[in-house]
Amino acid sequence: MAFSCSVTVRLYDTDAAGFLFFGSQFRLAHEALEDFLDHLGLPIAGIIRGGGTLYPVVHAEADYRAPLAVGDRLSVQVAVRAIGERSFTIGYRLLLADGREAGSVVTVHSALDKASGSSCPLPGSVRAALGPHLSV
Amino acid sequence: MAFSCSVTVRLYDTDAAGFLFFGSQFRLAHEALEDFLDHLGLPIAGIIRGGGTLYPVVHAEADYRAPLAVGDRLSVQVAVRAIGERSFTIGYRLLLADGREAGSVVTVHSALDKASGSSCPLPGSVRAALGPHLSV
Amino acid sequence: MAFSCSVTVRLYDTDAAGFLFFGSQFRLAHEALEDFLDHLGLPIAGIIRGGGTLYPVVHAEADYRAPLAVGDRLSVQVAVRAIGERSFTIGYRLLLADGREAGSVVTVHSALDKASGSSCPLPGSVRAALGPHLSV
Amino acid sequence: MAFSCSVTVRLYDTDAAGFLFFGSQFRLAHEALEDFLDHLGLPIAGIIRGGGTLYPVVHAEADYRAPLAVGDRLSVQVAVRAIGERSFTIGYRLLLADGREAGSVVTVHSALDKASGSSCPLPGSVRAALGPHLSV
Repeated sequence: MAFSCSVTVRLYDTDAAGFLFFGSQFRLAHEALEDFLDHLGLPIAGIIRGGGTLYPVVHAEADYRAPLAVGDRLSVQVAVRAIGERSFTIGYRLLLADGREAGSVVTVHSALDKASGSSCPLPGSVRAALGPHLSV
Repeated sequence: MAFSCSVTVRLYDTDAAGFLFFGSQFRLAHEALEDFLDHLGLPIAGIIRGGGTLYPVVHAEADYRAPLAVGDRLSVQVAVRAIGERSFTIGYRLLLADGREAGSVVTVHSALDKASGSSCPLPGSVRAALGPHLSV
Repeated sequence: MAFSCSVTVRLYDTDAAGFLFFGSQFRLAHEALEDFLDHLGLPIAGIIRGGGTLYPVVHAEADYRAPLAVGDRLSVQVAVRAIGERSFTIGYRLLLADGREAGSVVTVHSALDKASGSSCPLPGSVRAALGPHLSV
Repeated sequence: MAFSCSVTVRLYDTDAAGFLFFGSQFRLAHEALEDFLDHLGLPIAGIIRGGGTLYPVVHAEADYRAPLAVGDRLSVQVAVRAIGERSFTIGYRLLLADGREAGSVVTVHSALDKASGSSCPLPGSVRAALGPHLSV
């Protein structure tokens, strides 16, 4: 199962060199992540406010293959790259209208028990929601 | 003529007090402005790259009437508040799903000739595009 | 009593038009506000984590008088513009090295009781700390 | 030769989960990078405005080892990890006051000829400036 959504490079994502500031690619990826979590029935508002588990990013990386300019519309393909005992990995491909990959992002999220502040096993509901989107 | 679009409060728009960081309301307004300019046939990519005139913000202000949380979806009503000889003013109302106004923003843009770096008259095409959306 | 601190326009504060993105002036002002609060003995970490009162921004505005570019170093003069029963107002002047004012910002903060989520009187300690910096 | 500078986690770097938003660690690293480039006599303002070569990020990654909160002051150790024919790699270690590493960042920069928009060899002056800071 594939999930994709559309994001737009905004003026505040660019810098004086004329193109996307590299850090803004993580903003675009997180916008897509929030839409993906909505799609899974795990809206981020519920994670932040309710529940007992947070999923902070413990590793992130990005590649940049083409300069992106203000107004560029991208399709972001989001997939689950790994599901571990206490973490999961999300991959994002940012595609231009002509299908070229302009960039990609990976984020690794660790399950964290809010009360103790310690790592904890992934809740079964999260594992079940992510499972169908696993694509290595 | 009324223009409105939808924006979402993202995790990166919030801060450790739990709600929208005040500066992020300007991000949301600018997202709406870029959509409005698209709707007018004046996409911001064209303004930045082409043409001879920029429209930098010379004054901005915002009011905050309700706390906004991650995941909140807002309808942003965008209207032209004034058209001057060398500037224009845009107003933004951020509405919650129940119709309450969570906040509002005003931005004043001055026409600037790229070549000289000086203020210049508003181009006729911009005046014509903004006109039908004037609502004081 | 005057407080000033130094801030720098960073690459991520600029946009593809080549200069400061207007929203970033609020980032610079907030950097100065956090340094000012430190100076007052009211560090923002203590406000966010401890205590019973928050001071969310209920109104903000900014003027832009000169284009700012990456690497520009600014002196920010911070002063208290008003102290009300339940709110206070901070003013910021952003000065270039040659003394010209490149921009200014005003933020109005309302005292908010964390427990009830309602407006509350300014704590005496905050009133006392702000008082000596009042300059209308 | 070691270079380090101090950065502060600001309110706008945090999110509603209460700690640093992961993307903000790249903002902190870039603040340190700009200070490092200044130290090398290669200020970013000069790179953006003048010269014929830009150094866009083609790969970035970060690890997160401890939650960071608003007000945390970090020492960032910046070092050159690699110098290639057409690229260089910078490493950043973010250290808490007690010496623990809260996080780390790596950015890989490719030399890009502004006129042609193509990859080009690293200018000798840049190679010479980076050399003494090489530490693998």
